[in-house]
Amino acid sequence: MPPAPLPSRSADPVVHVPCLAALGARIAPPAGVSPQRVRAHLDALNKPQGSLGRLEDVAVRLATIAGDPPPVLRHRVVFVLAGDHGVVRRGVSAYPSTVTAQMCRNIARGGAAVCALAGSVGCEVVVADLGVRHGTLLGDGVLHLRVRDGSGDLTTEEAMIAEERDRAVSAGAGLVASRRPAPDVVCLGEMGIGNSTAAAALTALLTGCAPNDAVGPGTGVSGKALEAKWRAVAEAVARVGHETEPEEALRQVGGLEMAGLVGVVLEAAARGLPVVVDGFISTAAALAAVRIAPGARHFLFAGHRSSEPGHRLLLGVLELEPLLDLNLRLGEGTGAVLALPLLDAAGSVLREMATFSDAGVSGPGGEEGG
Amino acid sequence: MPPAPLPSRSADPVVHVPCLAALGARIAPPAGVSPQRVRAHLDALNKPQGSLGRLEDVAVRLATIAGDPPPVLRHRVVFVLAGDHGVVRRGVSAYPSTVTAQMCRNIARGGAAVCALAGSVGCEVVVADLGVRHGTLLGDGVLHLRVRDGSGDLTTEEAMIAEERDRAVSAGAGLVASRRPAPDVVCLGEMGIGNSTAAAALTALLTGCAPNDAVGPGTGVSGKALEAKWRAVAEAVARVGHETEPEEALRQVGGLEMAGLVGVVLEAAARGLPVVVDGFISTAAALAAVRIAPGARHFLFAGHRSSEPGHRLLLGVLELEPLLDLNLRLGEGTGAVLALPLLDAAGSVLREMATFSDAGVSGPGGEEGG
Repeated sequence: MPPAPLPSRSADPVVHVPCLAALGARIAPPAGVSPQRVRAHLDALNKPQGSLGRLEDVAVRLATIAGDPPPVLRHRVVFVLAGDHGVVRRGVSAYPSTVTAQMCRNIARGGAAVCALAGSVGCEVVVADLGVRHGTLLGDGVLHLRVRDGSGDLTTEEAMIAEERDRAVSAGAGLVASRRPAPDVVCLGEMGIGNSTAAAALTALLTGCAPNDAVGPGTGVSGKALEAKWRAVAEAVARVGHETEPEEALRQVGGLEMAGLVGVVLEAAARGLPVVVDGFISTAAALAAVRIAPGARHFLFAGHRSSEPGHRLLLGVLELEPLLDLNLRLGEGTGAVLALPLLDAAGSVLREMATFSDAGVSGPGGEEGG
Repeated sequence: MPPAPLPSRSADPVVHVPCLAALGARIAPPAGVSPQRVRAHLDALNKPQGSLGRLEDVAVRLATIAGDPPPVLRHRVVFVLAGDHGVVRRGVSAYPSTVTAQMCRNIARGGAAVCALAGSVGCEVVVADLGVRHGTLLGDGVLHLRVRDGSGDLTTEEAMIAEERDRAVSAGAGLVASRRPAPDVVCLGEMGIGNSTAAAALTALLTGCAPNDAVGPGTGVSGKALEAKWRAVAEAVARVGHETEPEEALRQVGGLEMAGLVGVVLEAAARGLPVVVDGFISTAAALAAVRIAPGARHFLFAGHRSSEPGHRLLLGVLELEPLLDLNLRLGEGTGAVLALPLLDAAGSVLREMATFSDAGVSGPGGEEGG
């Protein structure tokens, strides 16, 4: 069956858009119903008011962007964007850069954590090479959207030039725009040895926090490697300076996979889709997207609270409360896909629950109640 | 297709078993693999060690009871057991007792919160009347296992006599034993106006905590009703005394639905099934079951952390860490069914992830790593 055509979008996986600002400008205010109306609906359902806790907040946000009741999230895709990082030469990671390409192949073959978890919640995994450094991934089931062979070493040079950033953002946007069937919900995922160092630098630049507050163990460094990470982030922030525009921060210290994720967020938001953010790296990219286009925030849901300290900081700035808190520190989109059933459940409440009057159930304060 | 016969179990929904001790004695030690072996498997998978956080703990516990890899949890049932409580006449609840029967009908019709949430995770809802007070529910799709018309008022009298308790426990056990297809996982749910007061009294008796520490707002009482609840629990504890055997505590202050849940736990544990506990009321029943048969603890998973203060206390005693923390305070099994996808995900990790060597991925400390 041919996919339903979407108006004015090319089916080419790389949709070239003029610039970041133009992508952001396409984001409209949420097109669903007002939060007040959704709350009134929730309060009429046959349950004590507010007794579904944070699930009700999710229901309100879903209905605000997608209507009440919101549609079933049938087509679900986690976009796992991959890139390498020049800063790895500073000894900031427990793993060599070659692992990025190896893991991309493993994701494409279905053997990675995100594949197992996405499979368990009916979510498709799309893995794309935005800027892997080692070897080619053509023919391995990895989408080839490579903009350059890894980023520059953010401690001493820009991570990428402006044109590379824009191409990576466009490539990310194009992934969402060209996906068939069209996704009903998008999860952010990433793979890139060294990218928690880049995310820490991006977090420091975007939030103004002290470099040390943004640095954590990532995939598990300590001792000398952790010190190297602190130093790298401090050097990057000193080199770039704090008063940086988000586009420029992304260019100076971001990764190509993060630029791609910015594009995924902006395009998904422009299409009115819920976007489930994963851990530290994808949330740093999401904050960059929101700084570029503040309207994107309405579409973001935080899948989980990572054990990475910078993640808490980013969630606070984005005013997002994560749905899960399971001490995950893997990335790949694992914490985003795990939260999908909670979005499903919140939607089900609005779609399926009877009201007190439908159900013939007495409200509080009946003849016997205290 | 005829259901596969289970050895030596009747298909009658009420399987009469001689006594609580005999039910508990059928619980064998977990029949899966050792936690050490599961940990070794998890550590060989292509991810940083421990990076799936609490999901790895769930994987270990599942494999310990069901083997590595654990089977897919195909048939999932939430047993919503209902009962009324004589103590409601003390003004402890925001709702009248008549709501219990109304909600049972609403659950049977599919309009309740647990129906919406269970539907979203592919879980069947079974609602059974263990001790509803008002009217009959025959013909409304509610299983009729009523042992008596509501419990006695625990402030002044025993909630039930020993024979009633044993019949309710047997009825709960029989629900699990007779279910076709045989469940692969069981969730605990309950419905009963006034049952957070009974659960608070049971918690105080089983844990020895001060009555006030076990009392919370339940479905949303405050002011006079909350004071009435405190007083009722204090009177019940004073009447029964602290040094009570679990069977006797259940009889004196429990509800018929809680006794039924004790049976569900004991039978599910005897069959080696994972049991997902919901909030305060079902966890109080689960602790009673574990006090009766300590081996049952291996099979329990805590679905969520209720906002009810006594729940935290029970989870601490049971040494269970809840999977979700969403401020739910509804009961019905909602917080248990919501956790099922996390059990699925943990099983998927063991079933589907490649090891580092399968995947051709370098481990930590490669040529470039720090």
